[in-house]
Amino acid sequence: MSTPLTAGLIVIGNEVLSGRTQDANIRFLAQGLGALGLPLREVRIIPDVAPTIIATVNEMRASHAHVFTTGGIGPTHDDITSECIAAAFGVPWEPHPEAMRMLGAHYSEGAFNTARRRMATMPRGATLIENDVSPAPGFTIGNVHVMAGVPRIMQSMFRTLAPRLPRGQPVVSSSVHAMPMLEGAIAEGLGTIQADFPMLDLGSYPFERDGRYGVTLVAKGVDTAAVAAAIARVRGLIISAGFTPIDGEPTEGRS
Amino acid sequence: MSTPLTAGLIVIGNEVLSGRTQDANIRFLAQGLGALGLPLREVRIIPDVAPTIIATVNEMRASHAHVFTTGGIGPTHDDITSECIAAAFGVPWEPHPEAMRMLGAHYSEGAFNTARRRMATMPRGATLIENDVSPAPGFTIGNVHVMAGVPRIMQSMFRTLAPRLPRGQPVVSSSVHAMPMLEGAIAEGLGTIQADFPMLDLGSYPFERDGRYGVTLVAKGVDTAAVAAAIARVRGLIISAGFTPIDGEPTEGRS
Repeated sequence: MSTPLTAGLIVIGNEVLSGRTQDANIRFLAQGLGALGLPLREVRIIPDVAPTIIATVNEMRASHAHVFTTGGIGPTHDDITSECIAAAFGVPWEPHPEAMRMLGAHYSEGAFNTARRRMATMPRGATLIENDVSPAPGFTIGNVHVMAGVPRIMQSMFRTLAPRLPRGQPVVSSSVHAMPMLEGAIAEGLGTIQADFPMLDLGSYPFERDGRYGVTLVAKGVDTAAVAAAIARVRGLIISAGFTPIDGEPTEGRS
Repeated sequence: MSTPLTAGLIVIGNEVLSGRTQDANIRFLAQGLGALGLPLREVRIIPDVAPTIIATVNEMRASHAHVFTTGGIGPTHDDITSECIAAAFGVPWEPHPEAMRMLGAHYSEGAFNTARRRMATMPRGATLIENDVSPAPGFTIGNVHVMAGVPRIMQSMFRTLAPRLPRGQPVVSSSVHAMPMLEGAIAEGLGTIQADFPMLDLGSYPFERDGRYGVTLVAKGVDTAAVAAAIARVRGLIISAGFTPIDGEPTEGRS
């Protein structure tokens, strides 16, 4: 058994809290981290407020093996993530030589203005996270990985970062669904199956499709044989309740 | 001036943290709460783990005027939100007479099983939040409002709840965008405008559309005249940088 590894994510941005923007990064990172065996266990969405960012980073980096942040690393006045990370770690926030070189090479002399130089200003000791979309890199310091909020840039940064991250035991999952069916029809039997497979997470997710209701049951864990055995039990439970089990998730399902 | 009111949201569910489900509740609640003048200032996404739920509820209810939760109030073994809220408040978790009556009236005698009776078991002193989609209500206890995770049910519960919530000063916003344009071209001027309007939040949100880059600038605050004046300044800034300001958000914009 490898040491359990968990990840935390901090989404920094007033625009998500105001409902202006639909977050598109949480699910991408949840799936990407799960595939590495570094499961996401907590997400916090916080505003562009320095004391909040600093306190949240310090709390999260103490409680998770790895912490990821998205947002707030551009050139404008509301992009304060980088200087807050420096404050959280108690290190100077200063020009990063390699980032200065990269940005300097991208912009013409006049265009590499004060605001853009801020994007090359980082906590001392930061390691760059390059991306192939924008010239401005993210960075890693300690166990904190600081990425852009724009999804395409963030995704490119995560692809750069992934090979540098430790890998845990990948979680495997298997699922079955039935529609029509309500959770209450199988809830007691499911509880029994969960009790028989304490090493797994057995999730029950109701969904609605065109006014009809169904339920998806998902077994997750690192023990592939146990996952298969639990799902076989769930299939039997659905049949005994008088419904028809269908392998996998419903198409376009959401709970 | 009314007392500042802030809201916190706790999204409870392994399925969001695993990336199985794309959350569809955060943005709805962010917009709905903003319209009431009860701005969302923090979101936490946490797993279906009792000590985590209890600790998070107690931390959030101490730091926000109102706290909303979504998820974990169905009939299955992984639906533990309700009993955790009782534990957080230190009150008994017991059958709620009105909820028992509502659910008993909906299900036939045999179908109102132990699992479904759990949906009518609530912290003592809870006030029901009815919805017109499912027979199972949410509930309010103290400043915590406990809602379903299924979006259509949650939305109906929020419509029930909204008239019972206090209203603050509604935040108004105005926006302007330009494409092509990069943030770095206007960042310094924006910082000056933000400094001149300290009562507003001036946000800068880069976006990409078909490989071209643009920026949306949003001014937000309770002072309508200041919002309009700040956006007029931003329009002028965009023009002086050699670009063309367009009123409002870009269609289908995302940052």
